[in-house]
Amino acid sequence: MDKTGFRIKYPSSRKVYVKGERHDIAVGMREVSLADTVRVDAAGGKVAEANKPVRLYDTSGVYSDPDIPIDIRKGLQPLRDAWTAGRDDTERLAGVSSDYCRKRLADATLDAIRFPIVNLPRRAKAGRNITQMYYAQQGIVTPEMEYVGIRENIPPETVRDEIAAGRAVLPANINHPEAEPMIIGSRFLVKINTNIGNSVLSSGIEEEIEKAVWSCKWGGDTLMDLSTGENIHETREWIIRNCPVPVGTVPLYQALEKADGDISRLSWEIYRDTLIEQCEQGVDYFTIHAGLLRSSLPLIKSRTTGIVSRGGSIIANWMSLRQEENFFYTRFDEICEILKQYDVAVSLGDGLRPGSMADANDAAQFAELEVLGELTRTAWKHHVQVLIEGPGHVPMHKIKANMDEQIKHCHGAPFYTLGPLTTDIAPGYDHITSAIGAAQIAWYGTAMICYVTPKEHLGLPDKEDVRAGVVAYKIAAHAADLAKEHPGAQLRDNALSKARFDFRWRDQFNLSLDPEKALEYYKAGRLGDESDHCTMCGPHFCAMKLTKGIADCAKDEEL
Amino acid sequence: MDKTGFRIKYPSSRKVYVKGERHDIAVGMREVSLADTVRVDAAGGKVAEANKPVRLYDTSGVYSDPDIPIDIRKGLQPLRDAWTAGRDDTERLAGVSSDYCRKRLADATLDAIRFPIVNLPRRAKAGRNITQMYYAQQGIVTPEMEYVGIRENIPPETVRDEIAAGRAVLPANINHPEAEPMIIGSRFLVKINTNIGNSVLSSGIEEEIEKAVWSCKWGGDTLMDLSTGENIHETREWIIRNCPVPVGTVPLYQALEKADGDISRLSWEIYRDTLIEQCEQGVDYFTIHAGLLRSSLPLIKSRTTGIVSRGGSIIANWMSLRQEENFFYTRFDEICEILKQYDVAVSLGDGLRPGSMADANDAAQFAELEVLGELTRTAWKHHVQVLIEGPGHVPMHKIKANMDEQIKHCHGAPFYTLGPLTTDIAPGYDHITSAIGAAQIAWYGTAMICYVTPKEHLGLPDKEDVRAGVVAYKIAAHAADLAKEHPGAQLRDNALSKARFDFRWRDQFNLSLDPEKALEYYKAGRLGDESDHCTMCGPHFCAMKLTKGIADCAKDEEL
Repeated sequence: MDKTGFRIKYPSSRKVYVKGERHDIAVGMREVSLADTVRVDAAGGKVAEANKPVRLYDTSGVYSDPDIPIDIRKGLQPLRDAWTAGRDDTERLAGVSSDYCRKRLADATLDAIRFPIVNLPRRAKAGRNITQMYYAQQGIVTPEMEYVGIRENIPPETVRDEIAAGRAVLPANINHPEAEPMIIGSRFLVKINTNIGNSVLSSGIEEEIEKAVWSCKWGGDTLMDLSTGENIHETREWIIRNCPVPVGTVPLYQALEKADGDISRLSWEIYRDTLIEQCEQGVDYFTIHAGLLRSSLPLIKSRTTGIVSRGGSIIANWMSLRQEENFFYTRFDEICEILKQYDVAVSLGDGLRPGSMADANDAAQFAELEVLGELTRTAWKHHVQVLIEGPGHVPMHKIKANMDEQIKHCHGAPFYTLGPLTTDIAPGYDHITSAIGAAQIAWYGTAMICYVTPKEHLGLPDKEDVRAGVVAYKIAAHAADLAKEHPGAQLRDNALSKARFDFRWRDQFNLSLDPEKALEYYKAGRLGDESDHCTMCGPHFCAMKLTKGIADCAKDEEL
Repeated sequence: MDKTGFRIKYPSSRKVYVKGERHDIAVGMREVSLADTVRVDAAGGKVAEANKPVRLYDTSGVYSDPDIPIDIRKGLQPLRDAWTAGRDDTERLAGVSSDYCRKRLADATLDAIRFPIVNLPRRAKAGRNITQMYYAQQGIVTPEMEYVGIRENIPPETVRDEIAAGRAVLPANINHPEAEPMIIGSRFLVKINTNIGNSVLSSGIEEEIEKAVWSCKWGGDTLMDLSTGENIHETREWIIRNCPVPVGTVPLYQALEKADGDISRLSWEIYRDTLIEQCEQGVDYFTIHAGLLRSSLPLIKSRTTGIVSRGGSIIANWMSLRQEENFFYTRFDEICEILKQYDVAVSLGDGLRPGSMADANDAAQFAELEVLGELTRTAWKHHVQVLIEGPGHVPMHKIKANMDEQIKHCHGAPFYTLGPLTTDIAPGYDHITSAIGAAQIAWYGTAMICYVTPKEHLGLPDKEDVRAGVVAYKIAAHAADLAKEHPGAQLRDNALSKARFDFRWRDQFNLSLDPEKALEYYKAGRLGDESDHCTMCGPHFCAMKLTKGIADCAKDEEL
């Protein structure tokens, strides 16, 4: 595999690190340098005025630091391992704990696709609680908390308080020390999740890592690996070892693979072993559809699109076939007992999210949400961090009720929604139908929005689809940050708009979410020169150019 | 030029016409036929259940009617000419009234690019008022009003009442009889405008007609021709004669061309002649920046991006150079006297719309809006129909105030906004940043939203950019129709979602905003067969497929 092809370069940008005050930490940021603003003074001379560089939140990890060598066969440096070790409440195990992982490690036919280094997992020492929520409730500001505080320019005590109250989640499996700490909560910048994953129909390991790094390049804050095809275990290992952002999964998918796709054979034992396998690999959060109860199944009858959650449909089928209650629900305490030994967060899945306008905000959906609220309390009893998943397909006038109901039932746990799509009629453009809904629900308080690509409903996204989806969601998230008047969010807009007004084209593009695309479009319309107008209006009719010529509304210093 | 290349085809669709009850009119619609839903009954047999065809609002005119020949050298049939003639309050002139048009017609060097047929214009008879607003106020339901009533499934009396009150505009220049009537008002379906136009840097006549038809194909409701380059007059003639939707312009652009681009030489006389020229060609509405007064110029000083409206910057410059008040404002009564002779609507331009988050909702913007309210009263005194233009760049939490202020100051005249863009940081994706804002402001009551393409801020859109912009805005408009609970708006979503759940892939695509794109994406991920799962999940994990297998939540008739 190519050792350098994964390097990320942003134009006119350098990686800077801000040191911690309490802990030995260095928070990476992207600093964009800008050209001078050139003004014409009263005498007709040119006066240059420096523009300060702009620091941007950076999800690209060391992939954008040219001083750090990248080798995907070695994986990223385990940044957080020393912090975990320093707390002395975990232990390095002598071997892996899951049967499945042991079997895979012993299978020589997998050597060719296996990640070359075998790391022994960490686990909490007996009787110790090691979750960030637990630490926060003890009043401790961990290095992870200070890190995200610096990253978001928010006091570390606020970070701690929000985590302690359950209003924010800092996903940080001790077995994914390569991930840079980030935080999900309504007081913080809105985050976006991206999904990757091979299915039986496509995709290989290298392509998946490429997509993961690609997602980080464009601004993905977390990454869900939704693989359902061959070699899930090995693919995931490669991804986690090379992923600078938290990784989530739906363990049920793999559990079902282990049952040879036969839902009736799914069992708590298979699922439990899968949880342990993935906890020890370093998955940072699990989507678990524990709120979908048997009593809700009759509510599906009147729906237009039934169940559209993969996990939801699997567990619903299981309940129906076995005539038993959802074992995620009945075993939820046991699940939390496992998760808390690794500080894996639980993302309570909305198996009954609506899949169409017709089904939005129906009884099935809200019945499940109430159960998710009950499960939140259970998880918090174990100090397990909790996210609540939300819809789906919802027309605009019904979006706010989703946020209100979530707040009402789920005790302030962060909301994490898929869109919502605001109409059903645009397959091929659902990154847009859903960015409209995502921007709104994030403004109302949703902490993380799960991206949707143009291929939603149609097929698996390729790299360009991932880029389109991530950028659409960065737009939605940033629009919400602005609407929430998040401190500092507008600085980037202001710097970019000033560059636009100054005709500093390169600065405008370098500050944008996708500098490459902006430059490509800009170049397509002109003969190569950079000048004081754009191709939209031509040289004679540029409004901003004309503004500068109006004495009556010129800035005072220009006169 | 190609005589058939402009034909529009929609899959599994046919053109149907609904006859009027009061007038001899036939309203074109697109009817999509659907396959049967196939259910499995208790005995395991297959039962087919027919799905009714779905009728869709259709902006494509006769381009999608295979029975009507298309020849762009002849133009479309003058559908509305008999209706106008039947009212006997207009007269066919013996020649054109503008000096400029006379000169162009006399110039033999233009023969090669001239539209082959010269139509003599119509004008109101002396002392007669012929605007749709005037008729409505007299209690008359015109054929135009019945037409839009049928088109939107709204009683013709409601159409009349809304036009009479100024809350809706039916743009219908008597010299553009080729246009099919449509209506712009908050009680009706949200409309979208698209912009085309050559500039000095690009584009030819045929390409512009292609773009116009292309815009109609994807769902553009009106079309603004913003040309600023060579042969504006002749290009516009080709477009209007072949355009089945209302056409708008900013006459100032051409007036400035006539002054050789020298703003100081702009005059009322040049502008007046341009208005008459365009009224007689058939332009349906004019953007006029009459609300930007000298007193507002000092308010620009503190702005980040000054003036971003082309028209606004030109007239601001003129005021500054001439030290005179805006002649659009001082001559507004005279302007209305001209417009009402042809029933041209005025779209009061927002020359001071904000061009950045930093400038949103500032004093300059709202000062102009108040003047637009005053001008609305003046236009209505002449029974001239009025649209009010709005921003621009506005963060989400400041969007509602725009609608509220518009309603407060502009007496219910329809609001027509450009986006608004909800962040400045995504050049290359401003169809998305603005679709987010457009969906919201349309939900709040904006009647028409002006599309933005991915090339906004960067260059002129090509055909694919136009398609991307139109579809993004159809999404925003439809999302708003759903949120406003417009009667019948959700039928299309419901039919599409049912098709999705039934795995009737073709029906799903045929009902979508862009069937070609959906099919293209669908095909990209599979080997050609159409089956009961999509490539996202693969055959084993499809949620909707699994739902069907769950006895406990199956529809009763399936058991």
